[in-house]
Amino acid sequence: MYFASDNSGPVHPAIMQALNEANSGYAMGYGDDPQMDQVRARLREIFEAPEAAIYLVILGTASNSLALATLCNPMQTVFCSPVAHIHEDECNAPEFFTGGAKLTLVPGGDKMTGAALRTAIEAEETRGVHGPQRGPVSISQVTERGGVYSLQQLQDLTDVAREFGLPVHMDGARFANALVTLNHSPAEITWKIGVDALSFGGTKNGCMGVEAVIFFDPSKAWEFELRRKRAAHLLSKHRYLSAQMLAYLQDDLWLNTARAANDNCTRLAQGLRKAGAEFQHQPEANIIFATLPRRVHQRLHEAGAVYHLLDGGLDGDPSQMLPFRLVCDWSISDDLIDQFLGLL
Amino acid sequence: MYFASDNSGPVHPAIMQALNEANSGYAMGYGDDPQMDQVRARLREIFEAPEAAIYLVILGTASNSLALATLCNPMQTVFCSPVAHIHEDECNAPEFFTGGAKLTLVPGGDKMTGAALRTAIEAEETRGVHGPQRGPVSISQVTERGGVYSLQQLQDLTDVAREFGLPVHMDGARFANALVTLNHSPAEITWKIGVDALSFGGTKNGCMGVEAVIFFDPSKAWEFELRRKRAAHLLSKHRYLSAQMLAYLQDDLWLNTARAANDNCTRLAQGLRKAGAEFQHQPEANIIFATLPRRVHQRLHEAGAVYHLLDGGLDGDPSQMLPFRLVCDWSISDDLIDQFLGLL
Amino acid sequence: MYFASDNSGPVHPAIMQALNEANSGYAMGYGDDPQMDQVRARLREIFEAPEAAIYLVILGTASNSLALATLCNPMQTVFCSPVAHIHEDECNAPEFFTGGAKLTLVPGGDKMTGAALRTAIEAEETRGVHGPQRGPVSISQVTERGGVYSLQQLQDLTDVAREFGLPVHMDGARFANALVTLNHSPAEITWKIGVDALSFGGTKNGCMGVEAVIFFDPSKAWEFELRRKRAAHLLSKHRYLSAQMLAYLQDDLWLNTARAANDNCTRLAQGLRKAGAEFQHQPEANIIFATLPRRVHQRLHEAGAVYHLLDGGLDGDPSQMLPFRLVCDWSISDDLIDQFLGLL
Amino acid sequence: MYFASDNSGPVHPAIMQALNEANSGYAMGYGDDPQMDQVRARLREIFEAPEAAIYLVILGTASNSLALATLCNPMQTVFCSPVAHIHEDECNAPEFFTGGAKLTLVPGGDKMTGAALRTAIEAEETRGVHGPQRGPVSISQVTERGGVYSLQQLQDLTDVAREFGLPVHMDGARFANALVTLNHSPAEITWKIGVDALSFGGTKNGCMGVEAVIFFDPSKAWEFELRRKRAAHLLSKHRYLSAQMLAYLQDDLWLNTARAANDNCTRLAQGLRKAGAEFQHQPEANIIFATLPRRVHQRLHEAGAVYHLLDGGLDGDPSQMLPFRLVCDWSISDDLIDQFLGLL
Repeated sequence: MYFASDNSGPVHPAIMQALNEANSGYAMGYGDDPQMDQVRARLREIFEAPEAAIYLVILGTASNSLALATLCNPMQTVFCSPVAHIHEDECNAPEFFTGGAKLTLVPGGDKMTGAALRTAIEAEETRGVHGPQRGPVSISQVTERGGVYSLQQLQDLTDVAREFGLPVHMDGARFANALVTLNHSPAEITWKIGVDALSFGGTKNGCMGVEAVIFFDPSKAWEFELRRKRAAHLLSKHRYLSAQMLAYLQDDLWLNTARAANDNCTRLAQGLRKAGAEFQHQPEANIIFATLPRRVHQRLHEAGAVYHLLDGGLDGDPSQMLPFRLVCDWSISDDLIDQFLGLL
Repeated sequence: MYFASDNSGPVHPAIMQALNEANSGYAMGYGDDPQMDQVRARLREIFEAPEAAIYLVILGTASNSLALATLCNPMQTVFCSPVAHIHEDECNAPEFFTGGAKLTLVPGGDKMTGAALRTAIEAEETRGVHGPQRGPVSISQVTERGGVYSLQQLQDLTDVAREFGLPVHMDGARFANALVTLNHSPAEITWKIGVDALSFGGTKNGCMGVEAVIFFDPSKAWEFELRRKRAAHLLSKHRYLSAQMLAYLQDDLWLNTARAANDNCTRLAQGLRKAGAEFQHQPEANIIFATLPRRVHQRLHEAGAVYHLLDGGLDGDPSQMLPFRLVCDWSISDDLIDQFLGLL
Repeated sequence: MYFASDNSGPVHPAIMQALNEANSGYAMGYGDDPQMDQVRARLREIFEAPEAAIYLVILGTASNSLALATLCNPMQTVFCSPVAHIHEDECNAPEFFTGGAKLTLVPGGDKMTGAALRTAIEAEETRGVHGPQRGPVSISQVTERGGVYSLQQLQDLTDVAREFGLPVHMDGARFANALVTLNHSPAEITWKIGVDALSFGGTKNGCMGVEAVIFFDPSKAWEFELRRKRAAHLLSKHRYLSAQMLAYLQDDLWLNTARAANDNCTRLAQGLRKAGAEFQHQPEANIIFATLPRRVHQRLHEAGAVYHLLDGGLDGDPSQMLPFRLVCDWSISDDLIDQFLGLL
Repeated sequence: MYFASDNSGPVHPAIMQALNEANSGYAMGYGDDPQMDQVRARLREIFEAPEAAIYLVILGTASNSLALATLCNPMQTVFCSPVAHIHEDECNAPEFFTGGAKLTLVPGGDKMTGAALRTAIEAEETRGVHGPQRGPVSISQVTERGGVYSLQQLQDLTDVAREFGLPVHMDGARFANALVTLNHSPAEITWKIGVDALSFGGTKNGCMGVEAVIFFDPSKAWEFELRRKRAAHLLSKHRYLSAQMLAYLQDDLWLNTARAANDNCTRLAQGLRKAGAEFQHQPEANIIFATLPRRVHQRLHEAGAVYHLLDGGLDGDPSQMLPFRLVCDWSISDDLIDQFLGLL
């Protein structure tokens, strides 16, 4: 009953098999392996973007920070949600990679709205050279609280960005989970509405450690390559990244693992709702933020469930409602979910 | 009738005279001029801080950024007001000088409160290595909206900082203006309550361009010297900085010019109040934020008054209340103030 | 006949097996996996350094840059060989990670000498605050030209560093290859003579992608952890790094693969010598720099040998001597070496 | 008898007078003063460059570093002389301002040659993404050892830069001194041969502290403005920079002070030559590097002469030849030179 994170489970067997198969003979390093050509071709096909520049890195913070550094100069500010991973969970990595750009937190909750984004953008750069300059908008899809922007919600944001001439970055660490929630194609929720660069996650969805950075406009490709190398994110034995990504894209594995994770989450959410849990955010992908009485948490922990309590510990008034987070990956079995729900 | 800024007026004649007098013969450069010894001695005396490390730079952004970079590592975040100069008016200079630290905006208005600061500090670094680390607290005294922290208000902030082991920086671009408002000694409102580094302004209060950076604990003095040089803020003909600062401190000139500026402001504020202006912030030093009907602004501008309208221009409904800012320096004459008030 | 690099061959089967075995169940991320405890214990044992702080990252540029950034402030300069990997092959990564420190190239060849290092150190920082400050000494062991510093040669360098109070970093991307050449213990060629931080390579010696950073003095451990996270080098699924390193250290695998690589190199060198190749550097580990007539290179390339020509291509005067580089890893078979030598 | 530096003498009376005259009434800050328009017009006229973007900063390290940061991205390397001020005397400022670019020292002496520059450029970036990328060429005119590049020597350098598509920066801290040595116009030795950005010095030639940065191609003007502000080098009371520069350019003052300094140097050099001094570098502007016996230095120092000994002190073998440096500014009187020469 492990719901602490979607990066704690095992690598999907198909990915593991691909790594084993890749482990034969000699291959050029640093991204010049032949599998990378296939990765590039496959992602261009999936995104209907034959010109896209595509790179692999080992983890999400790298893909986000390198993409932002390529889109943003150090005198600018990045517009993002107050709970964005780039703000809260990367120990100033975006500030480091950009050479000292700022992050402007768009007021509101987890999901930014077009109106709030507009207000935040308008508030910046009324001071000419004195204030930070307006820079990219960064959208987390899935959000950090488990929400999925609808096509319309996304377009509200990208319309505002486009109006101000600002580039758009999408943190898609859980892009596949968002995609299977929405009834749209990858292209429709990215470049067709104005996303310039996408962090396309694999790690949280069955891979060992691989993320693609996709620039739909390839004009900054070389700059990105240099930034990746300079940040020590160009792997010598790159074929093992390519192999993962290739297997991930093969036979819709990426969609199947995401769908499994989301389905697990839906099942959990239904059970929690029945058991009286209150939801702080509507679970739209594979993450749940809800509250339950402490006594239930005590029971779950005793039975070995692993997940994060968000405010307060197991000791205290048994009837107090305690917020918690559950995250599902593809690997959680129905049995374990039933076992968990049975304890409620 | 020039109320646009306190850096637009002339240099005080005594400062100018000091520059002329310094302009004779040869002097060692880069801070090794003999006048700098006197500056150091005089400031140590004024602040009752015989060990303090003291440096001169040419402008406030440099003093703030260099002081913060010395107190803050790139993995940390600086706690400050949402309207702090270091956040709004320095084009990411603190992020640049610190090598990519973050600024955490303490929710609330212009003045931070101890309670809000505590909440902001507690919210950071609950994530171990993942989030930004807690760094210095930066207090603007005078605030950007013309407020002056009382001794108790300051102590509320420094107590919280000390509780969390965080260093305290004071942006004292208008330190003298704050001092003459309060009935306390320089030491009482700085190191005695836990301020570690002070940006001690001269430029806005009659100098041509000089600010002192004072570290009450000199242990990081050498690091600061290197940072100053590396940022191109160590002047070769440093004697002209020393001469300004020395004249500024001579015969209480700094207090007299600050008092003149504050008195001018008080007089203006009284007249504005009589004329029906509404104050957005209580003017406690030399800055006024208030509103007047557009028609009054039109009249003032026609008569040649220079100051900033903050939201909207001169064209429109004559009865609409428009916010504006007035800043006084020592040089504004009573006549001009009367002339201005007469137009209300 | 693949001699282009020691990062082009397959992962050692034992490492691969360990990855497969690690792929079961759930594990805490970000270095909190139980295998990491074993890695730490094992490396402390191998280095007789029970206090050492030990971290894993995915590639050598990251380990070098993060170690240097922890040892070096941005006002300093790192002393290294003119052909050091950190200077020539990391696209300014050390400058990036340190926040703008400089690299001072110690005149001479591939191996630094104590005398040349002393001269270089003495030349810096005669200018007080004006020049770069003296920072760490970085030693590549194995060197970029395939040399191995003897204990005495190392000590000549670390003695000079210690005399000036400078920390010492060792780029040990091929540390195992050096170790099996020398008749000394890991401790004897590192902390016992004054090495402060070691990049301990695994990737070039049979792993998929893992390097340990070892701080023999753990006082800067936390700073390193923050720097690693901020640079996006803290892996979420860290157990797969731990598993590699653990297998690498198991049953002396690391020494066996290094010995195999060095033996391959010796065999190659002997054959080359017999065939009249001239050696530009004495091959002391697993790398050869030599020259052969173009006609021989033509023959080798036609037969499918893969390696780097260093100055000039296959077209031209057949009798011209062309320099080239051969690198061996553990996986090169005797047959292939014989086949290669047979073509000479 | 003060020959220690050309930044130790007094400000020229005409500059001082201009500062006094500027000190009246109110002026917009941050470069929007009306005098700046005149500065811009005058420099465009002098350089026959009606489109040039022109900015003022307070000292040479700022002008160099900001110009280079605008021309150079952090993945590149700047080509310069091994004794360039940007390398030896700015405490890593160029590395800081560029965000971590490298400096590649062109082998040879004080003056770079076209051939050596070509070799250095060719040596870089043979490694694709791995090595530093080729960036700007920075030429010091006057050089740090008192040399002046001839038009042909400059063109040899700029031709090479142009061939590789690299921008050219000129560190003209002593540009006026070079100009009066050469028989060419300002345009002829800058943009007409391919200089892109010029640090045009005033401080060492009679000003209190002002340098112009001139971009002959204004396309990066806005980026420069942002970089200047972010580095805390945009002065609020900017009119005092403008006033200095305006007076400096008025009635050829800048050329007259430079000519005076060079003439003083020539006179000194002739006297030294007669007295048996050996010259390490040919003095071509206002700086002398020579050697004299220690006994002469002892005599000079006893008589109060101030200048730098470069290797060794006053104690020791009286007949030993000791190298030293003399720098002249405009203010050195003939009497003092005679007095100095009389002591030889």
